[in-house]
Amino acid sequence: MKTRKLANAIRILSINAIQKANSGHPGMPMGMADIAEVLWRKYINHNPNNPLWFNRDRFILSNGHGSILLYSILHLTGYNLTIEDIKNFRQLNSKTPGHPEYNNLLNGIETTTGPLGQGLANGIGFAIAESILSKQFNKPNYNIIDHKTYIFVGDGCLMEGISHEVCSLAGTLKLNKIIVFYDDNNISIDGNVKKWFNEDVEKRFKSYNWNVINNVNGHNNKEIKKAIQKAHNEKIKPTLIICKTIIGYGSPNKSGTSDVHGAPLGINEVEATRIKLNWNYSKFEIPKKVYLKWDAKKKGQKKEDEWNILIKNYKKKYTQLYLELKRRLNNEIPKLFNIKIDKFIYKTQIKPENIATRKASQNTLEFLGKMLPELIGGSADLTPSNLSNWSGSKSFNNDNSGNYIHYGVREFGMSAITNGIALHGALLPYSATFLVFFEYAHNAIRMASLMKLRLIFIYTHDSIGLGEDGPTHQPIEALSNLRIIPNMNTWRPCDQVETIVAWKHAINRLNSPTTLVFTRQNVVQQIRDLKQIKNIYKGGYIIKDCNKFPDIIFISTGSELNITIITFRKLIKIGIYTRVISMPSTNVFDKQSEKYKNKILPNIIKNRISIEASISDYWYKYVGINGTIIGMKTFGESGSAEKLFKKFGFTINNILKEAKKMLIRNYSNNKI
Amino acid sequence: MKTRKLANAIRILSINAIQKANSGHPGMPMGMADIAEVLWRKYINHNPNNPLWFNRDRFILSNGHGSILLYSILHLTGYNLTIEDIKNFRQLNSKTPGHPEYNNLLNGIETTTGPLGQGLANGIGFAIAESILSKQFNKPNYNIIDHKTYIFVGDGCLMEGISHEVCSLAGTLKLNKIIVFYDDNNISIDGNVKKWFNEDVEKRFKSYNWNVINNVNGHNNKEIKKAIQKAHNEKIKPTLIICKTIIGYGSPNKSGTSDVHGAPLGINEVEATRIKLNWNYSKFEIPKKVYLKWDAKKKGQKKEDEWNILIKNYKKKYTQLYLELKRRLNNEIPKLFNIKIDKFIYKTQIKPENIATRKASQNTLEFLGKMLPELIGGSADLTPSNLSNWSGSKSFNNDNSGNYIHYGVREFGMSAITNGIALHGALLPYSATFLVFFEYAHNAIRMASLMKLRLIFIYTHDSIGLGEDGPTHQPIEALSNLRIIPNMNTWRPCDQVETIVAWKHAINRLNSPTTLVFTRQNVVQQIRDLKQIKNIYKGGYIIKDCNKFPDIIFISTGSELNITIITFRKLIKIGIYTRVISMPSTNVFDKQSEKYKNKILPNIIKNRISIEASISDYWYKYVGINGTIIGMKTFGESGSAEKLFKKFGFTINNILKEAKKMLIRNYSNNKI
Repeated sequence: MKTRKLANAIRILSINAIQKANSGHPGMPMGMADIAEVLWRKYINHNPNNPLWFNRDRFILSNGHGSILLYSILHLTGYNLTIEDIKNFRQLNSKTPGHPEYNNLLNGIETTTGPLGQGLANGIGFAIAESILSKQFNKPNYNIIDHKTYIFVGDGCLMEGISHEVCSLAGTLKLNKIIVFYDDNNISIDGNVKKWFNEDVEKRFKSYNWNVINNVNGHNNKEIKKAIQKAHNEKIKPTLIICKTIIGYGSPNKSGTSDVHGAPLGINEVEATRIKLNWNYSKFEIPKKVYLKWDAKKKGQKKEDEWNILIKNYKKKYTQLYLELKRRLNNEIPKLFNIKIDKFIYKTQIKPENIATRKASQNTLEFLGKMLPELIGGSADLTPSNLSNWSGSKSFNNDNSGNYIHYGVREFGMSAITNGIALHGALLPYSATFLVFFEYAHNAIRMASLMKLRLIFIYTHDSIGLGEDGPTHQPIEALSNLRIIPNMNTWRPCDQVETIVAWKHAINRLNSPTTLVFTRQNVVQQIRDLKQIKNIYKGGYIIKDCNKFPDIIFISTGSELNITIITFRKLIKIGIYTRVISMPSTNVFDKQSEKYKNKILPNIIKNRISIEASISDYWYKYVGINGTIIGMKTFGESGSAEKLFKKFGFTINNILKEAKKMLIRNYSNNKI
Repeated sequence: MKTRKLANAIRILSINAIQKANSGHPGMPMGMADIAEVLWRKYINHNPNNPLWFNRDRFILSNGHGSILLYSILHLTGYNLTIEDIKNFRQLNSKTPGHPEYNNLLNGIETTTGPLGQGLANGIGFAIAESILSKQFNKPNYNIIDHKTYIFVGDGCLMEGISHEVCSLAGTLKLNKIIVFYDDNNISIDGNVKKWFNEDVEKRFKSYNWNVINNVNGHNNKEIKKAIQKAHNEKIKPTLIICKTIIGYGSPNKSGTSDVHGAPLGINEVEATRIKLNWNYSKFEIPKKVYLKWDAKKKGQKKEDEWNILIKNYKKKYTQLYLELKRRLNNEIPKLFNIKIDKFIYKTQIKPENIATRKASQNTLEFLGKMLPELIGGSADLTPSNLSNWSGSKSFNNDNSGNYIHYGVREFGMSAITNGIALHGALLPYSATFLVFFEYAHNAIRMASLMKLRLIFIYTHDSIGLGEDGPTHQPIEALSNLRIIPNMNTWRPCDQVETIVAWKHAINRLNSPTTLVFTRQNVVQQIRDLKQIKNIYKGGYIIKDCNKFPDIIFISTGSELNITIITFRKLIKIGIYTRVISMPSTNVFDKQSEKYKNKILPNIIKNRISIEASISDYWYKYVGINGTIIGMKTFGESGSAEKLFKKFGFTINNILKEAKKMLIRNYSNNKI
């Protein structure tokens, strides 16, 4: 076995850190160490002094369980990651958690990985972002946006369906700056993969129009270099380098087996490996010579300095563009944006229209698109249904100066690519599908929330109100699913005014994602005064009230608000003091002051009824055990929206009936 | 344009039904009509008199938006589906909902389709089931299980990631009885697919080891026949027939465009199409001659009769096997099963062991496997972590007499295949992954619930208790997400006894799915009397009580139950009357009588605290607005389970603190 000292530093750090933590995945870091060494030392233009330098190459460890590989590299090349951090691998509050975590303590992690296949998808999002930005900002002799995206993937990533979605799309989109290294080691957790993963990966990726470099010995630096060079020379296609590696390379007794996949080597095998690798130092000791060779600070700083000079000259020559880029990099909203959108909101309020909120969203995009060139849209083959485009939408699929991506029927891939575009920076992506199909992409939505990405997921066809397509297409659980994801804000506006406010809130949310949920069908625009318009932004507000202490409070959202308000009028007529709360975003409402919340929904009022065509359970949070929830308890059915709303109890009569029942139950009310 | 009258009957019914409904997707039924005609008239061994005849070929319309194609065929071949049903297309309570619905009013629908790609996956499940059953039951000269699975797919299905997962696996598993027809029409909702779906499908499926028959003119019956014949001759590989079709074939002005994908043709174009097709009858009139040629009742009955004779002789010769098959087809549990498992439960109760519930589940499988040969297991490459195998597990991947499927890292594909195995009948499938990765498969879990399939999803590593792998692997929202899916029962047992009961309940649930959620880490076995053991089956029961009216009620599940019980003891010691409810399944508890529920959790007791390491919001349903929820409000972190439980408040001290706070708040209690 021929091994190189520089790569062995990775192996030694990895197996010792894992042994110390008594958990982790040594096989992959040992197998990919040689490739990592060549790539990081020869090619990646990173700067450990400033890990967030914008034109850096992006590196993604899609097989994130091998996190210690990345930590070892960051340590060795000179990032702010000490040997103590390596020793704290997988410990609470360390810089080195079990999987690489973006937006945590350590800069230099481009995305959180672990859920397989998604890192690859994020990387394709990076490449799309790079491509769009280069068209938006580069000028002759000023390639200020010009970097590659390198991705490590394992068998698992390639088995996952999302790898198919995004790689097929990447080939079609001709994203030649993507270079993927496939760790072809034949081993997964259940054993030798050939019994469940026997596809011809080269042929598969060629079918996607990729440049495939096969049979690269992942333990031979010359072959690795040659492959990377070839990838760099490719001007059209993304590149897949299929690296034949031995899992746990260096471990004399366990390499090449699934034993080494997900468990520490054991003290004896760590020692045997040390001897095998001819490594004559203590557990966490790296010789100075090795550190020196790995150190990338000087080289990296030089690259960044060159870029800074380029940018300085660019600033002089293309001042407006420079300022625009700067604004984006600083995650700033254009001046006057909020003033202008507020005007738009007021204007819309006084020009009522009973349109679907998906249409209201498209109208809003028409406003936003012109002000926010950072907006990058897209849909999973439902553009005419989602109404996710606007007059300035230009297809990226035709020309990478575009701002709109036709993702095809690939909800999960779309969402994880959207995450990638957001992660890259300087763009604000949104993407759209039907609400029910959020389930196809669920974990990507979770990852956006975990990473606190600034982006927007649009979901239309938000309830049984979509009608004839039936239960497979009618979301019942989705609103609840979305609302309980930490860090996510979900909005379900009731009319065009609430729609614009939801968008405004989403755009202003600089450090976490937003989900916007819209109707297929038309909704009635509600009447509001200035204060009410302002309070939409708080997620929940009083839209109708009595002038006394209410006997009963209705809470409603979206398309069900209007029947709630009609019921309110009927109750008021017969002398029942009623209040209606419009609650477009429970998440945003929850974050308001206790004072505000108690003003809107006073603790002492127990007569509460929620009305929403979505699963009932969620609403106990607002109406309590003794409240009444008019919601869904079963799946929907195929039929007209009108008949479905009637069948499932979303009618004025049913709300009236439930209100009366509640009043009779909770105190004998002589008004009833 | 050459068209055939028999296929045109499909086209005419389709466009008129869609026009009448004023919604639907005419393009696909028109494009696939010729292929459907050849397949259904010449090949499928169905019997309209008895659509559920067990050895029928299975037909799946994976592109379910073309449902009217299937309804037209079922009508024409003689199923119990009248022309009035066709006229009621997409209406409430009709036999012809917007998408084909299994387990609804119409027999002959093998699976519910609409969410793209999943029908294809179900079909692969059918083929696996057929293969396993043929090994279990066939004898020389008695091929009593011997049928094919035919699947129609569109571009959308092939773009979806799940198609990659399951087709790669199907090729590896050599499922040659699958014949997939790909409707290669170049059009999806956003327009011409080439801009987002430009892969070489033939090459891709060859990379999966499929038999691919390309360039079949989907409007030429001879070519279609030839292709099907070739597919039948294939003895190893699954077959993909790539049919070049014209979407909306027959519509003179709209065929070949995305206009015809998702909207009615319009009255004028329907009329133009009628003329173009030379169809001289009124809207829903089919000439008798055409009906006669389509009628499959006689032919189908003959095929079934032959099979019935075969079965009759088989019964004589292989009586035991026959009885076993009969039991399975009747969805019966073996006699004595419940008596034996009850004994196993009692025996386990009196032999306490503090093991992880995933391990307890494996021990239970050891018991179940021997009694239930219909159990077909599997894992998405996490067998040694999920502990989803048992000593009798034999890999189907090696030999299709096996009962355990190594699915590879393919959660969504696995789950939809599991649905397919359940749909096929005579097998009881279960499949396993980590709880957090249920999100990768979310919509398949929903589909299982919508279809009310008898199957079991196992999810291990159920909380922050999995420790070091960190937030990407720690489910927070999943329990809530699973619990709110209509028809699904979710269990989270606290120890090995509750684990066996959960399994018992799942096995006895003949008409809907169950989810079993298990810990990675060891849990303490609880003490129970006979009555308590019996009440586990009710989903929630009193595990600790005071002999007075309780001051406070704790509700807890799974790994958090033990600290709750220790806290209970402390409170009892200081004179606080406390009750502890173990609630392994909220869904099952919800279905108990009001009397039982009120006995366990009396309405009048408002001092309630829930303790579960899962998202808080769900628990308002049980503790109310003024209750206390000790749950998760954020994502988890990477670290040891012990430290994480402490950090997030799952400690005896914190429960004590919250209990005291509640008692002080709700009434000045001089005990505190």
